[in-house]
Amino acid sequence: MNRQELINLIEEKKSFLCVGLDSDINKIPQHLRQEEDAIFLFNKAIIDATLPYTVAYKPNIAFYESAGIKGLIQLKKTMDYLHSLKQNVFTIADAKRGDIGNTSQQYAKAFLDPNGDFNFDSITVAPYMGEDSVTPFTVYEGKWVILLALTSNKGAFDFQYIKAEGENKCLFEKVLERSQNWGDKNNMMYVVGATKADMLSTIRKIIPDSFLLVPGVGAQGGDLSEVCRHGLTRECGLLVNSSRGIIYASSETDFADRAAEEACKLQKLMATELDNRK
Amino acid sequence: MNRQELINLIEEKKSFLCVGLDSDINKIPQHLRQEEDAIFLFNKAIIDATLPYTVAYKPNIAFYESAGIKGLIQLKKTMDYLHSLKQNVFTIADAKRGDIGNTSQQYAKAFLDPNGDFNFDSITVAPYMGEDSVTPFTVYEGKWVILLALTSNKGAFDFQYIKAEGENKCLFEKVLERSQNWGDKNNMMYVVGATKADMLSTIRKIIPDSFLLVPGVGAQGGDLSEVCRHGLTRECGLLVNSSRGIIYASSETDFADRAAEEACKLQKLMATELDNRK
Repeated sequence: MNRQELINLIEEKKSFLCVGLDSDINKIPQHLRQEEDAIFLFNKAIIDATLPYTVAYKPNIAFYESAGIKGLIQLKKTMDYLHSLKQNVFTIADAKRGDIGNTSQQYAKAFLDPNGDFNFDSITVAPYMGEDSVTPFTVYEGKWVILLALTSNKGAFDFQYIKAEGENKCLFEKVLERSQNWGDKNNMMYVVGATKADMLSTIRKIIPDSFLLVPGVGAQGGDLSEVCRHGLTRECGLLVNSSRGIIYASSETDFADRAAEEACKLQKLMATELDNRK
Repeated sequence: MNRQELINLIEEKKSFLCVGLDSDINKIPQHLRQEEDAIFLFNKAIIDATLPYTVAYKPNIAFYESAGIKGLIQLKKTMDYLHSLKQNVFTIADAKRGDIGNTSQQYAKAFLDPNGDFNFDSITVAPYMGEDSVTPFTVYEGKWVILLALTSNKGAFDFQYIKAEGENKCLFEKVLERSQNWGDKNNMMYVVGATKADMLSTIRKIIPDSFLLVPGVGAQGGDLSEVCRHGLTRECGLLVNSSRGIIYASSETDFADRAAEEACKLQKLMATELDNRK
């Protein structure tokens, strides 16, 4: 999905909500756990319920890998289902990959190749290994790298805020700046944790037009209106993720309805934010 | 495999060679490519041929993921085969994972859990997201985190050498230092690219006893004797990886014999280095 298609989708749905599919066999409703395809059935119910309010789905790859090959089959079924929908949605492999060039090529193929098992629109990538670890993900037409800049976890403070000597810039700002040479607003987004909403103004000075994937609204404590105040652009420029707050809104048989309610609440807030854009 | 067992294995075999299984369907010998289990058969032949000279095997996970679920089945078969050997070997998931705490837990389970599909001894982890992205990998008894410090690719210069203000230390040194609080020499190793052999002395000052995984001898231009001069310790403290130089030594039917020859050459050099330790 290219940039314009994504913007159109956001305007149509009045939503920039991304639902994180961190689907865990130990957390999904009890009545599903015995099923052969428990995780897929859970995901399908969540997708069906939240689709009216959602522009993107983000399977967290770790939760599928942790169940081994069976888990990845659940991921494939989920992706096949998303591709079968009449309505287009943006898909994110939350995989945090990144390795030397020839290896990143293989990761790009694994997640982005239209003929591969998964065929995601985008993948999250870690920047530590630099340019040749990132650029192999930019070669697929209409697909995206989502580069980690400032994450929402406690460990973000260990390295991401290290000040570069003589530059008055932190590591995450260097990542934003340098990566401008590796891609552009049409094939590169950035992960920026919602718990760092006040940093979004700084970030918007470096990347005024790029889309940001903002995890951590809800369970991780981020506030949507703060995020919008600092990060929303004329073309929206945001995908705001919620995982646990939606998919585990209930652990009973009403889980899908409750997920829809939570997604709907966020979508309404987002519609207001979009309407109030200057 | 714990530290003492690893040291014993190195002393027994007079080798600290790690063979990288970057097995690519487009590079393995033509006569194998049509087989249902081509990659596994290739790996098995390489393992059988190189085992006398090798203490560790390092499947590069990207090369399996790029073939989707079928590729991961080849990985599982390879790991099952390694576990079936009478002779113990150290196994490394070269996966460069790392995410927020609850997600890293899932990655740890995926690769290190003794009841999982793969049951590796260790996994390579990217440090960008800090402490809570790394520590979940340290909880499995006798298993290891191998943290990226200084990599051997061109992109290593983008961020890893950024000097921290007022500290006269680069980012990779900060990673080495700070991670000392997250684990110890019994559960944490570091990736240090062989093309940076002169940096090994600096690194040894920070982590005198930790094992280092050194990729890049051979194809990436590193020199074994330089690596040993700066990195070898009384307990060895090194695992030196070679991938393409061994597994693709020949693309004909003699590929396994040629792989054994290349592994044997490196093992002989390593035996000399171990004998000459002070």
